[in-house]
Amino acid sequence: MSLKIKVGILGSTGYTGAALAGILTKHPQVEIIFLGSQQYAGIKFSKVYGEFHKILDQECINADDQYLAKLDSKKVDLIFFATPNGVCHKHAALLIDKGISVIDLSADYRFRDLGIYEQWYEFKRNDHELNAKAIYGLVEFKRESISKLKRPAIIGNPGCYTTSAILALAPLFEKHSQIIQKDSVIIDGKSGISGAGRKASTELLYTELNESCSPYKLANTHRHGPELEAFFSELSGSKIQLSFSPHLIPMSSGLLTTCYVNFTEELNETKLQEIYAKRYAAEPFITLLDSDTYPQTRWAKGTNQAFIQVKYDARLKRATITCAIDNLMKGAASQAVQNMNLLFGLEETSGLK
Amino acid sequence: MSLKIKVGILGSTGYTGAALAGILTKHPQVEIIFLGSQQYAGIKFSKVYGEFHKILDQECINADDQYLAKLDSKKVDLIFFATPNGVCHKHAALLIDKGISVIDLSADYRFRDLGIYEQWYEFKRNDHELNAKAIYGLVEFKRESISKLKRPAIIGNPGCYTTSAILALAPLFEKHSQIIQKDSVIIDGKSGISGAGRKASTELLYTELNESCSPYKLANTHRHGPELEAFFSELSGSKIQLSFSPHLIPMSSGLLTTCYVNFTEELNETKLQEIYAKRYAAEPFITLLDSDTYPQTRWAKGTNQAFIQVKYDARLKRATITCAIDNLMKGAASQAVQNMNLLFGLEETSGLK
Amino acid sequence: MSLKIKVGILGSTGYTGAALAGILTKHPQVEIIFLGSQQYAGIKFSKVYGEFHKILDQECINADDQYLAKLDSKKVDLIFFATPNGVCHKHAALLIDKGISVIDLSADYRFRDLGIYEQWYEFKRNDHELNAKAIYGLVEFKRESISKLKRPAIIGNPGCYTTSAILALAPLFEKHSQIIQKDSVIIDGKSGISGAGRKASTELLYTELNESCSPYKLANTHRHGPELEAFFSELSGSKIQLSFSPHLIPMSSGLLTTCYVNFTEELNETKLQEIYAKRYAAEPFITLLDSDTYPQTRWAKGTNQAFIQVKYDARLKRATITCAIDNLMKGAASQAVQNMNLLFGLEETSGLK
Amino acid sequence: MSLKIKVGILGSTGYTGAALAGILTKHPQVEIIFLGSQQYAGIKFSKVYGEFHKILDQECINADDQYLAKLDSKKVDLIFFATPNGVCHKHAALLIDKGISVIDLSADYRFRDLGIYEQWYEFKRNDHELNAKAIYGLVEFKRESISKLKRPAIIGNPGCYTTSAILALAPLFEKHSQIIQKDSVIIDGKSGISGAGRKASTELLYTELNESCSPYKLANTHRHGPELEAFFSELSGSKIQLSFSPHLIPMSSGLLTTCYVNFTEELNETKLQEIYAKRYAAEPFITLLDSDTYPQTRWAKGTNQAFIQVKYDARLKRATITCAIDNLMKGAASQAVQNMNLLFGLEETSGLK
Repeated sequence: MSLKIKVGILGSTGYTGAALAGILTKHPQVEIIFLGSQQYAGIKFSKVYGEFHKILDQECINADDQYLAKLDSKKVDLIFFATPNGVCHKHAALLIDKGISVIDLSADYRFRDLGIYEQWYEFKRNDHELNAKAIYGLVEFKRESISKLKRPAIIGNPGCYTTSAILALAPLFEKHSQIIQKDSVIIDGKSGISGAGRKASTELLYTELNESCSPYKLANTHRHGPELEAFFSELSGSKIQLSFSPHLIPMSSGLLTTCYVNFTEELNETKLQEIYAKRYAAEPFITLLDSDTYPQTRWAKGTNQAFIQVKYDARLKRATITCAIDNLMKGAASQAVQNMNLLFGLEETSGLK
Repeated sequence: MSLKIKVGILGSTGYTGAALAGILTKHPQVEIIFLGSQQYAGIKFSKVYGEFHKILDQECINADDQYLAKLDSKKVDLIFFATPNGVCHKHAALLIDKGISVIDLSADYRFRDLGIYEQWYEFKRNDHELNAKAIYGLVEFKRESISKLKRPAIIGNPGCYTTSAILALAPLFEKHSQIIQKDSVIIDGKSGISGAGRKASTELLYTELNESCSPYKLANTHRHGPELEAFFSELSGSKIQLSFSPHLIPMSSGLLTTCYVNFTEELNETKLQEIYAKRYAAEPFITLLDSDTYPQTRWAKGTNQAFIQVKYDARLKRATITCAIDNLMKGAASQAVQNMNLLFGLEETSGLK
Repeated sequence: MSLKIKVGILGSTGYTGAALAGILTKHPQVEIIFLGSQQYAGIKFSKVYGEFHKILDQECINADDQYLAKLDSKKVDLIFFATPNGVCHKHAALLIDKGISVIDLSADYRFRDLGIYEQWYEFKRNDHELNAKAIYGLVEFKRESISKLKRPAIIGNPGCYTTSAILALAPLFEKHSQIIQKDSVIIDGKSGISGAGRKASTELLYTELNESCSPYKLANTHRHGPELEAFFSELSGSKIQLSFSPHLIPMSSGLLTTCYVNFTEELNETKLQEIYAKRYAAEPFITLLDSDTYPQTRWAKGTNQAFIQVKYDARLKRATITCAIDNLMKGAASQAVQNMNLLFGLEETSGLK
Repeated sequence: MSLKIKVGILGSTGYTGAALAGILTKHPQVEIIFLGSQQYAGIKFSKVYGEFHKILDQECINADDQYLAKLDSKKVDLIFFATPNGVCHKHAALLIDKGISVIDLSADYRFRDLGIYEQWYEFKRNDHELNAKAIYGLVEFKRESISKLKRPAIIGNPGCYTTSAILALAPLFEKHSQIIQKDSVIIDGKSGISGAGRKASTELLYTELNESCSPYKLANTHRHGPELEAFFSELSGSKIQLSFSPHLIPMSSGLLTTCYVNFTEELNETKLQEIYAKRYAAEPFITLLDSDTYPQTRWAKGTNQAFIQVKYDARLKRATITCAIDNLMKGAASQAVQNMNLLFGLEETSGLK
């Protein structure tokens, strides 16, 4: 590794890729080697995202199979895949073989059980061995595993809904799952529109989404459901099933999850608050709010921060835990950089504060 | 009663009052006698709401105690209270005595048990007798009672969150409460900003709310919780406790509730759908969507329509029922007109289609 | 003609087409015979636009050449073309021959001088004779011509920017062009996003447009420039050249033009106001605001109304005239219905109030 | 001066004050000594602006006359006034006397001719001598004067509309005013809502402004008109009068000016572009766009950057020059920091890139 980490971004002109480019441009220990984009190959990045004028005027390239085949670890230390699902798993093994690490922002390396992945994503996988080595990059709950990784390594970066829901609920599943009522968890998510990506589709037009709120893929039909169930099952050592309800709301970025969980014994808000306070005391990117302060998604805008609040209704033995993040940042790009920092032995907060 | 119903509106310059004025202006069987507004007394209504230029240029008046005292049933048949909570109950008995009917869009006449009202709203009540005669104006579940009312009568018009949640859940509580798992109901509400009213307060400024999503008054701290519990308890004949979670989302109007309920026995989506289809088949203002069509709040904009979808997750024996309305319309003003139509023996849909 | 006007809509599933369908559904003297849509043929209209559930559940059809060839004036009295530019002119002559009137909401029949059309729209035209008979459907300035039309007839319905700018400026060009300083007119337009149509393109995505404001096609590169110049030149009898500057602003609908004009002699606000007051006194769809009341586009939402204000700066002998409309209504669909009403001898305001 | 510049902010809890706090918190050479706020004295800054949790948890203070009287240049090097107009001029002389520099973000020190200030702002001034020493902090056109200032000094920081308009037009007035047609300049401004400040007023409520666009204070009735006229008159050495038309558009931040100017001789786009390219080549915060790229305000969000495009219509000898900035940043807070950097001999871009 040179003095600066040499990185490439595939899918750099999607919203997640551009958010990543924005962070890496300012990161003191990173050099961007290439910006991959099939759609905009040959075009300056700043022509696609005007805010990068004078900041990132380098041309996008079509980083196709041939291009990737010629790369080696002298040229690139790390490649971020900000590509659609089903792309990274075709290239990762080759890159790892060359000594190039991979952080995948798609779903390809988020599942230990590839059966679930194949069922929900409908891509056939031939990289079971590599997949078994991949770490799920939810740093606050995988820090030790990530820190111990030997490069080249591969990390499956979690998505926006899952990051928010895990940060909201994992402190309970981690050590207190015995007091969680089985099957009681409900995650009601509200996402800004950028979470749906930069596809030219009628459903994502301004006029279709502005001044409207709508649910989608309810009742165990959204792919993030099984991902959350797998994570919480692993964390708690018991089979967790839950309801996940995504909603689109009319804002560009920001994501809130409202998480419900019932307990089998009596608790109170103070005790719950203590569990979270203890768990997150040392976490630089978690802000635990007091019980009078409700999180607002705009507070997280442009940052890697998560804002969490815990409320409790004693009548129903039910907690309502809310977590606000920026879907493109802690929910994608900045979390990927947090993973990079750990993987390359940098200060975890480098380039993120 | 004259050929046209002569109505007055108190609190006409709030968002609900203005929505009401908009409907009544076009209603073929209504004449607006006065537009009450403390803040804008002496000012043309169209000066406050520019869209009423040439449509409702009449001046607002300060309809204070003295003014109301001079009214009689020759001058006015019906007064709508689109005032803050705690106003209507001071005037209603007097008006009823004069032969003037009252439809109250505030919370004053929504509770049979005034103890709950006094606890949550902190106003002392001296009108227990009148309150006992008030009907909760959720038409789809109180039509018969409202139709039988003898004028002058008083109706407590439900608010936005409660209307949406009741329409989503009442078909279950009405006849199938025995299969609902006790205490399992969660109502996650998403409201446009106009629901918070037209108060000059910092929290409601554009810049505070745009591009942000936030919960408020979670875990049994919002007044609509006990109202919903009272309604469902009465409907089902058993004590219902539930979680209600309101959220503000950045749009002017529109409201969605995402309602969760667990069942004690196995069901399926088709059976559930049938319960709703049967219950709502004849309802002019309910659109039951098929299970592939998710409601969007903008569809309801400016109408009295509710859009409902039912989904079911067999793994968890849990239904997710969503209901989209316009918070200012079916959630307030147009529902009040629906009540008026019934109370005065008009076609229920008059002025609303 | 039957008791109801039998109409068809081509391009019914675009934003303009849907706005038209919305008005016509409620119009007491209209029956919708068919809803043309290439993209959604065979699909219920209410499946494309959810707000039409229970209101317009009829299926869209592919109203292709064959379909149109089979139509006759017993089946259809009038066809609205809410299609892209370059479609109507291929079909209009045939329909007129069959006795079917045409109101075209595209640009095809807005130009007397087809040379300008061919230069700016790049479609070759073979219907010069028919085009010469077409009337430019800006009702407030063409009412007499439209009323005199013998059916079947063809009307070229103006677009949003032009309607707003003409209503703002035509009272000056009509009778006072001698006091307008040559070449001084500037029209700075601000449009909601629906004006750009319902195309699946990246530039129209929510995330691209929200929280942003941008000009486009400045300095005589937008097609509405020559249309305005032609209109004002004809109206004033002298060659008018002007600047037209369109901007997209983050709202679904609504359009404001801020129009600047210099005078060759001294005037004052009162005199100017009088010119407008006199000219528009009898116009049902023009609201002339007093000089302290600035127009807000939301006042016009969902209506055929235009809100106009006139201001004057004596130092510079320059007037600033602003005009707010709903781009989909007075700027497209409701103006087309206003034209229909006139053409078919109905009350001009029928279905529009 | 210590190693870090010790600064205080008055009016820190307004939108401009908070934007300033955000920049200064990250500025490597600044220490925030106090955060003044009458309204929130005694409350943590992060309680008012949630995004500052863990970043700026310090309590706001009521920095009243007594507080300011006790300050000295050992405690504070510089005070930013992000207060309403009419506050700074009461305190500035005293602070300067104590050796404390002042950067005023209000209008108090923007006028050389206090007669204009007194006429438009209606505050009586007794600090003519100090005012004469104040520099108008539009850095790109006052860099030399600012750099030469001896501390303690006072700078009048320009506002959002004026900054945008000056950057768009000053290259012409600076050296080419002889080819500008007298009185031809029109500045049509479009501002995000935060520009109106954080006052609890009905007009600034979300529901009043969302989905709407409106002009205000047209035709020489807005205070920024005379400020612009004064600036351009001084720059060009001749009396300039112009039209300034502000508009509110529904977005939180961002500002675009569309500026029109006529020339007395024939030009072309290339020549104009060259004037700007030459003038702005070395400017770190100006991005001159090519003539095919229209500025979008969101590009400037959160930055000190201005995006400028120049277009020309040869028919009318008129240029249309557009400039997009973030109203709270280059239009207020970040420009104030740019001024601070210059005044204290730091790198001009320090803390701003």
